[in-house]
Amino acid sequence: MHLKEIGEFGLIRRFQKQIKTDVSVLRGSGDDCAVLHLNKSMYQLFTCDMIIEGVDFKKADNLEAVGRKALAISISDIAACGGLPRHAVVSLGLPKNMQVNQADFLAKGIFGLARKYKINIVGGDISASSKLIIDVSMLGEVEKHKLCLRRGAKTGDIIMVTGSFGGSIKGKHLEFTPRLKEARFLVDNFKINSMIDVSDGLIQDLGHILEQSSAGAVLFESLIPLSKEAGGVDEALCSGEEFELLFTASRDQASKIIRCSKYGFRLIGEIMPVSFGLRSINHKNKYSRLKLKGFKHF
Amino acid sequence: MHLKEIGEFGLIRRFQKQIKTDVSVLRGSGDDCAVLHLNKSMYQLFTCDMIIEGVDFKKADNLEAVGRKALAISISDIAACGGLPRHAVVSLGLPKNMQVNQADFLAKGIFGLARKYKINIVGGDISASSKLIIDVSMLGEVEKHKLCLRRGAKTGDIIMVTGSFGGSIKGKHLEFTPRLKEARFLVDNFKINSMIDVSDGLIQDLGHILEQSSAGAVLFESLIPLSKEAGGVDEALCSGEEFELLFTASRDQASKIIRCSKYGFRLIGEIMPVSFGLRSINHKNKYSRLKLKGFKHF
Repeated sequence: MHLKEIGEFGLIRRFQKQIKTDVSVLRGSGDDCAVLHLNKSMYQLFTCDMIIEGVDFKKADNLEAVGRKALAISISDIAACGGLPRHAVVSLGLPKNMQVNQADFLAKGIFGLARKYKINIVGGDISASSKLIIDVSMLGEVEKHKLCLRRGAKTGDIIMVTGSFGGSIKGKHLEFTPRLKEARFLVDNFKINSMIDVSDGLIQDLGHILEQSSAGAVLFESLIPLSKEAGGVDEALCSGEEFELLFTASRDQASKIIRCSKYGFRLIGEIMPVSFGLRSINHKNKYSRLKLKGFKHF
Repeated sequence: MHLKEIGEFGLIRRFQKQIKTDVSVLRGSGDDCAVLHLNKSMYQLFTCDMIIEGVDFKKADNLEAVGRKALAISISDIAACGGLPRHAVVSLGLPKNMQVNQADFLAKGIFGLARKYKINIVGGDISASSKLIIDVSMLGEVEKHKLCLRRGAKTGDIIMVTGSFGGSIKGKHLEFTPRLKEARFLVDNFKINSMIDVSDGLIQDLGHILEQSSAGAVLFESLIPLSKEAGGVDEALCSGEEFELLFTASRDQASKIIRCSKYGFRLIGEIMPVSFGLRSINHKNKYSRLKLKGFKHF
């Protein structure tokens, strides 16, 4: 049986069944970050993301942007948990025929973004590789009462997002700004019940929230903010690597959040009982069931 | 200019120059682990190691052993700093045509060793890749007074090792036992001035200690413990991925350490002033200067 037959998420579940963690781990595999006990008031966040030439970026892509992306993905994960990034280690697989100035561009992207977000690059590993590989592991911190996980969405919660969706592949996937300011603004000022960053696609990542919250949802298609590059609402709902925040809060909190003009948070749906499943309403007020489609590696 | 021209260590130095870290980092890039402030009595250790098919293991190798190796390398790094491993995240690049039972073998190696060493696997990332890639990032903890770094070797220190050296490529590199028990025994009972695990080769890794301690050394060739697989002392001095501990302590401490029959620690040399450089003495009592040769990716 090939990996394709059980799929990326089937494989992850197969691995997760074998994992046992001790009491120092509040949340292990299955969220944007692992959550570890740090001290009385703080949790430590721990995440890793690997990007590979030919899969997550093209050989011809600007290497400064590629280095930036490698770090930005992990920052986005820390943000989605409501935390602040602190330290990172970087493993590089570099082709033997790489030019030193290409490696310099890559480093410029990584170190430049690290400086901007005050992240300490504290170590790494360099290996020869036929294709360029960058794997970043990042540590962050979050005040205990500000932690956001995928689970926690409640029936009646309003579903909101940052930014706009669709056509990320045309450039945004390499040049996005991780929504750290927005996430911190949210957790500093409101009670957020669940949050995730959109890496696999809006529907699929909403699916992660619903699965872990044992909930259903309805999405209002006409309210999905479309980017200029979007190829329509269907594409926007499945577009991976948008790296926007998708989050839920009570109706009361949501009405206050939507009124904050500063960051342009947008309402796109509502959490429903699990029996409702996941449906969308189009501009003709017609319901349809949504399939959990989006990016999968296998 | 190609990477080969500046070499792996040239590239690392080039990157390190661009790094600035804040006061929460006691030791960043350049040791077996990064060392972060954790609380009053403990430091946190953070390390990453990537292994790639065709570079660090062969396509035909037993995948359970490969998974084991991926985790064991990082355990060895934590041990070399005197600490205990606690948590790890694992990034996997998996070929699309991989069989599910092959992925199961890989997982068995990773999760089995994690259970043995009581390490929590708290997250990961899975990506499609043409070659199998495993990158492990690990967190550990060490009591502040037990921390061992590469720097700290002093003139007159005795240089010691665990185990035996040479021919690791014939099997040990896949099946080694990380020297965690030995390292903890050392830091629990003695004052260790410097320590490293031998991944690049005995001479080259001793070179790292000497460089960071501003010291020289003499090695007694006839005292180097050779493994059955060793192709002579010259090979043993350069053989990478031996994953034995190389450490130094004062003469007084060393005499007590050598007398511990439990772990078979062996004396192989002495730390000298930096002006002495790095030399060996062969069985005819003849000195010769040693070049820092060992495994380099570029």
